Amino acid sequence: MTLPLVPPLGRQAEGQFRALVAGKAKPPGSLGRIEDLAVQLALIAGDPQPAAERAVLLVFAGDHGLTAAGVSAYPPAVTKAMVETLLAGRASANAFAQAVGAKVRVVDAGVAADLDPHSRLIDAKVARGTRDASAEPAMTGAEVEAALALGAQIAAETLVDGFDILALGEMGIGNSASAALIMHRLAPAPLEDCIGQGAGHDKAGLARKTRAIAKCADRSAATAPLEVLAQFGGLEIAMMAGAVIGAAYLRRPVVVDGFIGTAAALAAIRLQPNARDYCIFAHASAERGHRRLLQALDAKPLLDLDMRLGEGTGALLALPLIRAAARLLSDVASLDEVLKGTV
Amino acid sequence: MTLPLVPPLGRQAEGQFRALVAGKAKPPGSLGRIEDLAVQLALIAGDPQPAAERAVLLVFAGDHGLTAAGVSAYPPAVTKAMVETLLAGRASANAFAQAVGAKVRVVDAGVAADLDPHSRLIDAKVARGTRDASAEPAMTGAEVEAALALGAQIAAETLVDGFDILALGEMGIGNSASAALIMHRLAPAPLEDCIGQGAGHDKAGLARKTRAIAKCADRSAATAPLEVLAQFGGLEIAMMAGAVIGAAYLRRPVVVDGFIGTAAALAAIRLQPNARDYCIFAHASAERGHRRLLQALDAKPLLDLDMRLGEGTGALLALPLIRAAARLLSDVASLDEVLKGTV
Repeated sequence: MTLPLVPPLGRQAEGQFRALVAGKAKPPGSLGRIEDLAVQLALIAGDPQPAAERAVLLVFAGDHGLTAAGVSAYPPAVTKAMVETLLAGRASANAFAQAVGAKVRVVDAGVAADLDPHSRLIDAKVARGTRDASAEPAMTGAEVEAALALGAQIAAETLVDGFDILALGEMGIGNSASAALIMHRLAPAPLEDCIGQGAGHDKAGLARKTRAIAKCADRSAATAPLEVLAQFGGLEIAMMAGAVIGAAYLRRPVVVDGFIGTAAALAAIRLQPNARDYCIFAHASAERGHRRLLQALDAKPLLDLDMRLGEGTGALLALPLIRAAARLLSDVASLDEVLKGTV
Repeated sequence: MTLPLVPPLGRQAEGQFRALVAGKAKPPGSLGRIEDLAVQLALIAGDPQPAAERAVLLVFAGDHGLTAAGVSAYPPAVTKAMVETLLAGRASANAFAQAVGAKVRVVDAGVAADLDPHSRLIDAKVARGTRDASAEPAMTGAEVEAALALGAQIAAETLVDGFDILALGEMGIGNSASAALIMHRLAPAPLEDCIGQGAGHDKAGLARKTRAIAKCADRSAATAPLEVLAQFGGLEIAMMAGAVIGAAYLRRPVVVDGFIGTAAALAAIRLQPNARDYCIFAHASAERGHRRLLQALDAKPLLDLDMRLGEGTGALLALPLIRAAARLLSDVASLDEVLKGTV
């Protein structure tokens, strides 16, 4: 496979970066998690003044054959409708991107419909949706590899185009079912801990979703990352996993959104463990399995706002915190300067 | 006293605003606390499209005579040094303001030193610091009333100057001792639950701080808000309380920072209970009494980042969340539009 190799962080500089933060004009440790974030950013960039200003959100979209088994409360056509809403600038992710100052681009990883060309749309359609994972593998091995490679390539090209930091989001009716199966096999975690309401279910709907997911799990015993992605999908999840690797390869921070985004990051990290250190986990989603999934990655999210929308909305809200951490390093005087009156 | 009267929220519109949020193109409730925030903003403005874009941080600075009793780990001269750092644009609050896009102005409420004029400095010095509250009242009644009135006036004039939303911060060596006493009497709460590390203390320092605070509490049994402020200070806290009232009077949202800011908001709310509904509590500080203080106000903070710096740093980081909530109302399509294809 043609995925780039993520380099390890240069941990030998950690002491130097920690001392820099500790020497700022404030009580030591008084900026809490922002201080840790500053050190992480410096380590990722290998630079005591890392850049985090120019941000882009890539929203990966794809459809899921598993929706035929009734895993979602919404009809699959909503994927295309929400992609069009994102392209029109009228989805929640667009509103949040405006609020925080980030660009939005939508990647068609595998929407099961034709999409009109658009300046914000990147056409990377690998297939018109996945196959029904309760009956057969969602993707071929070649499709998984294509999705991963395209994700890495799109992330790298987008960043090189003029961005410091990459936020990841997704849109795909049915994709919390795929994410549950990925978590189950790669975290790993008991299946029942991985299944939640997704976009919303009544009791009967959740029972239907649970049965369909169990059928998928029964059909394949896959535990290797590539095979898990192939068996359970989805195209947008595999492409997001590739994007994590592509951004980390360029030593740029990757902001991971909610349950589905974290499942994609998990797949990337199981493929290349070094990718973990480049990930910033934005928020604890209200989706049931998310906290346990974060624990499996030893990740402490920055925000906890009871959100469970996806689209990258949580990742966007973490961007200002990340920028503040970067500016702590670049903008704030040292305590020495203040005490000597040389600010 | 010449404080303006804060109007009650127009709660009759709440159902309409909730329906508006519920009808947006996303699963109902999936934006969690951002949805509640959107409704609060609409209620504050009395407008389904509230503005929250143009933000200003006012940092109120003052000195505390109580520092003579050793309540702070830092010498009182640090207040002036940090005010100068804020004016030079090199404090943490400046860095965070740049990161989120907010203006910073510093208000000299009672710094015990002369400050050179500066374009970002508002001179509202009521006195050169407070008196030692362990020996005598920190302020006269006239000083408290002047500080409150000036705070309300400065907040209103600043907002009218071109801002939608006001964030509050403070700088004052020793002020977590005053805040502890205000919390003790106005929350109210047992004194031992109100005392924390402040900017930082070793064991002996914390014992010294605790003794000095107990001496203040023994000296006066005040429980009325104006008298509590007069007895325990400080000038910057009273002026912040006035600013809460001034902004709420104009029906603008007020973003409250950490322990000291919340103590100021508490004083404002005990003076005018309607002010509560205009406050947005930014974060749970690592300062010991803050969570209990927030509970006393039935306030659930937006962020929890283990921060305890003050200066308004936490309030600044909440601004992007508030802007996202406002844009949810103004920018996001309705589900109807998406389903009808009219986005």
